[in-house]
Amino acid sequence: MPDTIMSKEPTSDLENAMQMLIKTFHKYSGKEGDKYTLSRCELRELLVEELGSYLGNSKDNEGVEKVMNDLDSNNDGEVDFTEFIILMGALTVACNDFFLDKTDDKPKDEKKE
Amino acid sequence: MPDTIMSKEPTSDLENAMQMLIKTFHKYSGKEGDKYTLSRCELRELLVEELGSYLGNSKDNEGVEKVMNDLDSNNDGEVDFTEFIILMGALTVACNDFFLDKTDDKPKDEKKE
Repeated sequence: MPDTIMSKEPTSDLENAMQMLIKTFHKYSGKEGDKYTLSRCELRELLVEELGSYLGNSKDNEGVEKVMNDLDSNNDGEVDFTEFIILMGALTVACNDFFLDKTDDKPKDEKKE
Repeated sequence: MPDTIMSKEPTSDLENAMQMLIKTFHKYSGKEGDKYTLSRCELRELLVEELGSYLGNSKDNEGVEKVMNDLDSNNDGEVDFTEFIILMGALTVACNDFFLDKTDDKPKDEKKE
């Protein structure tokens, strides 16, 4: 990694999360072709290796094709960083909803520390 | 934290990043009022403590008011998790653009391992 904002030591969990999202994208996008976008092959590798336990470990092409088609809003067969962040945002909101559903049997006004 | 998906040990940097985003939001949203949304006061605390070194350490109310007004799309004076994730996504894309600008003096086709 070049000596830029990305090599700055994160000082909080949020900064750390942002750096991890950026570093993970470029770890895969740099493997072949345009190094700033994910090809189908790179996207498949990222989904299986980094999100396998959330998305299921299926290596079927159909699932990857579906995600690629949903994400690739400009139809160039590549997923850019903004498209990747939209996926990650949607997944994180879904995880949070799941987390809230699981805790919804607790009284709404209960205070936790 | 309750014993749910959130207490599952993350197996990759991406899973870790998702958990950090969720945990950080709830660390602040749970402090007062609706524990599933950030009030102005909670948002200010989150911005200063977690993103101070990115956003500048200014504690002026004007900056917090601006972020709150930009984020609070349904005008209820509270920032919910989806609104928070939109902010984090936009910040992460901005950081990535900055990172690419800094490395743009390198040849585009240079392969790095």
